[in-house]
Parts: sequence; structure tokens; C-alpha cells
Amino acid sequence: MELWFTEFYKGEGMDLQGTGLTVKVKNAVSAKTPFQEILLLDTVDYGKMLVLDGAIQTTEKDEFIYHEMIVHPALFTLGRRPERVLVIGGGDGGTVREILKHDPEKVDMVEIDKEVVEFAKRELPTISCALNDERVNLIFADGREFIRGKEEVYDVIIVDCSDPIGPSKVLYEKGFYEDARRALKEGGIFVTQSESPFAQKRVHGKVVDELKKVFPIVRPYLAFIPTYPSGMWSFTIGSVKADPLAVEKEKLKESYIKFVEEKGELKYYNPDIHYGAFAIPNFVYREE
Amino acid sequence: MELWFTEFYKGEGMDLQGTGLTVKVKNAVSAKTPFQEILLLDTVDYGKMLVLDGAIQTTEKDEFIYHEMIVHPALFTLGRRPERVLVIGGGDGGTVREILKHDPEKVDMVEIDKEVVEFAKRELPTISCALNDERVNLIFADGREFIRGKEEVYDVIIVDCSDPIGPSKVLYEKGFYEDARRALKEGGIFVTQSESPFAQKRVHGKVVDELKKVFPIVRPYLAFIPTYPSGMWSFTIGSVKADPLAVEKEKLKESYIKFVEEKGELKYYNPDIHYGAFAIPNFVYREE
Repeated sequence: MELWFTEFYKGEGMDLQGTGLTVKVKNAVSAKTPFQEILLLDTVDYGKMLVLDGAIQTTEKDEFIYHEMIVHPALFTLGRRPERVLVIGGGDGGTVREILKHDPEKVDMVEIDKEVVEFAKRELPTISCALNDERVNLIFADGREFIRGKEEVYDVIIVDCSDPIGPSKVLYEKGFYEDARRALKEGGIFVTQSESPFAQKRVHGKVVDELKKVFPIVRPYLAFIPTYPSGMWSFTIGSVKADPLAVEKEKLKESYIKFVEEKGELKYYNPDIHYGAFAIPNFVYREE
Repeated sequence: MELWFTEFYKGEGMDLQGTGLTVKVKNAVSAKTPFQEILLLDTVDYGKMLVLDGAIQTTEKDEFIYHEMIVHPALFTLGRRPERVLVIGGGDGGTVREILKHDPEKVDMVEIDKEVVEFAKRELPTISCALNDERVNLIFADGREFIRGKEEVYDVIIVDCSDPIGPSKVLYEKGFYEDARRALKEGGIFVTQSESPFAQKRVHGKVVDELKKVFPIVRPYLAFIPTYPSGMWSFTIGSVKADPLAVEKEKLKESYIKFVEEKGELKYYNPDIHYGAFAIPNFVYREE
């Protein structure tokens, strides 16, 4: 008897209407929280796979790509040890795990769904491990509300959210980006996952456009994420001063070598990727 | 009634054992040649999709990525108008279409399966259009045999082949690369598609290793191809002298602008991509 799961791509902003990723499953566990449905699949190819409301969020096999790439380009651009970092979303803990490698004093993680965090702590220990670190301050609240009124508190703000449906929708709007800008310290950096430029072209374009109304420097970049729609994924950095493309090559190489000596090898990010990820194919910002 | 097709990834060198891409189909036509089974799907998301022996080869929606990226990095590195270019495989004609934009005097295309070419000419005109150009010399033969004994004939040799199963297997071997090197003119460039570094990691690594035994300069590079296994795809350039990373930035920008003025916009390749595509994530060449 064989068990298979297909994520059929759908929902607001999804350009694909008849495509899915199909994976062979050894075992499945499901749960329901006040915010969403959780499905944990033990898959043949990707190890454990976390699915929220039918959409694959993270897998043991390829989570390193998403988590390294949402964190390291911004943190290596910052050019100083971060005192305080904010993560909005990021319930599985992988983003916090990568941030801690930069020795921050404190990480605030604001996640709306406490049960996802508890589920990840129990079922995905290699991803959620860092959530027990004493520098991590877990706040179960609405990230949109949390950031309102904060001024010059954070060195880096990372939005590790799901698609613009349900609770995450407000995290794609200009008002939120304005509040985030105010919450950043001098020289601080905002970064958000910004969907697939192939499968969610309009949503990606809108994130970049809205960020440009708020931040003078806006830099979208790409990574290969095999278990996300189309495999072509994007993140976007917004900042007032700090520019990932203006980081000096030799200086970055030095910081990276020191980082690896102290914290161990990374699996995706390196100085070549730091610059190369910002190369964007022509079709992404062109009308069809 | 709904019709769906799933490509379940399999075959020699495929690391994924329980993954597939599922697409919604409006219409399907199949044929059988002496070499392979052809399936032409009219899909909801990708337009017409060519499937050979169960593996998706090309689609109207994303073919531009593969065809631009197998051609332009090498042709923009060459630094001169190509007199003669060889394509091995490439039955759908998309690779030849991109080569012709560089005004070669002559393109030899050696394809083993005449019926695939005829099928593409009939069913995929936007991809196969260039095959009727008078500069194109279509040869229906075994590419491995064709190249044996050729000396200093080609400016660029492009291997646009399928997975290392069946007739394409010999196109992944050192002996073939040696013959290809001999067939290149002074300053010439060899380029081959080199599978997915995520889904066919060992095969990709072996292509790069074997090329390194033959060419002093070997440069793997990446592109997002949503309809190929994992979406993370690679090509590898081999050459004696010409190095895509040594091309001067300002000079490349000038050539590119001139190219676009004369030949029209490209949809994927641009000077940023030219350099950025060569950034390779750490995991690709690391033992696990």
C-alpha cells in the first residue's frame, strides 16, 4: 500500500492553477489549531515535512536553504554584532537557529500560533532546537499589532510568514512596512520572504513595489527551494542605509571565514551566493 | 472530468525516489519512435509540454529559461562572432533558436531521433521555428559518433541531451569530452546541461569531475527551471582559455545592450545573471 500527498497550488496570488508537488509518504499525523490545520508527513525524500493549511512550509531535507537565505544575507550586511533581532512568524524555529549563529544579545520571535511552535518543538527538533535558547524571547501574538509604535528597537527585522492569506495578509502591506522601518535602529535591515517570482509573480512584484515606497534601498534576491511552488523563491531586503550589494567583497570573505571557523559550515550561503542571489532574470519585473 | 499527469522522478542517477510534478492537462497526444516514447500534453499552466519516456523535456511557458541559459553564457563569453556551432541533441529546436541570435555562419545540429524533430516542427512552432533557417544543418545521427575525429571545427559545442539513460549515456563520459575538446577551435567553448545538483547530485558532480580531467577551465552554473526535478538545474562550461567569469563587466554590458537592440529582449539572461549564475551553494560539492 502506498501513501502519496500532493500539494495542489492554489489561493490568492497564486498564478499556477493546475500544478502540484507530489511526495511519497511513510506516515502522517494531523492536528488542528485555532489558526490553521497542521499536517506532519514523514516523507521518503524530504524526511519530516510540515504542512499548514495544505501548503508545504518546511522539510528536514531542504529547510536549510530557506532558513540560511532569509537570515545570512541581511546579517552579513549589518556589519556589526546584532543586539536585538525580531522575527515575525517563523514558528518552526529554523530562522532563529540561524540568527543565533550571529551572537545576538536577544531575539524576539512573535508567532501568532503557539500550537505550531509546540508541534515543531516536539516533532522537528533539528529545526526548532534554538527556541529553547535563553536569548530567545517567544511572544505569542499578532506580529502586525506587536510592531505598531515600536521605535528604533531592532537591528534586523525578519518576516518569516506564510502566503498572503489569513493571518499573514497584513504582513504584505505598506502600513506594516512603515511600522517596521520605524522599529529599526540606525543602519538596521528589514527582510521578508517575498513568494515565488515565477508562481506568484504579481504578489512578489507588489511586495517589492510597496517596500520601495518605504525604504530607499530595496533588494530582492533568489534561492532554490525544491519544495516550494516552482522551486524559484524570493526574499527582499529593505533598508535606509545598509546595502547588501555594497558590502566589500574582501571584508565579507573575511567575516565569512571567521564565522565558519566559530559556528561551523553553512550548507547554502557563501560570499558568492551573497552577491549572486541578487541577479534577477528579466521576466520577473516585466509585464507579459 | 479532469485529466492530470504526474512525472514520477526515477531512473539512473536520480536521488529522489518518491517525488513527482503533477500538472493539469487539457489534451494529450502520444507517439512512439524507434528511440523513445513521445507524449505531448496541452497543460493549463505551461502551455504545450513535451514529454519523452515519461520525463518532461520542455514546455512553452518555461522553455526560455533552459534555452537561453544553455546558450548565452557561452556565446557572450566567446567574444567573437561564432563561425560554426555544434548542437548535440536539442531536438525541439529551442537551443538553435537562441544560437541564431548570435549570427553564426553555420549551426550543425546532430539529433539521434528524427521523429522528435518532426514532431516539434509540427507541434511546437514557437520553439522549433529556427530549424528551418538556412544556416542550420540538421544531421540525424548519433552525436557520440559524429564528433569522433573532428579537429578544430567548432567555436562552441552545446550538448542539449536528456538524462544519462539510453542513447544519452555516452554523452556523460570522459572520452566524449576529450573528442569534444579536440573538435573545438582555439578559444572555443564546450557547454553541457549537467542535471540537477539537488535531485541528481552524484551525476552532476561526476559531469564536473570528468570535465575537469579534460578542460583546464570548468565552470558549473545554475538556473531555475520549474518543470525539471527540484527546479534547481545546472549547466557546465568547459574550455581551454575562455572563462565566463573573466569576461569584463563593462564589455559584457555593452555587448548585451547591442545584442538586445538588434535581436530583441531576452527573458532570463542578462549581465547580472551571467556572473550570478556561477554562485554555487555549499552543499552541491560537499559529501553528506
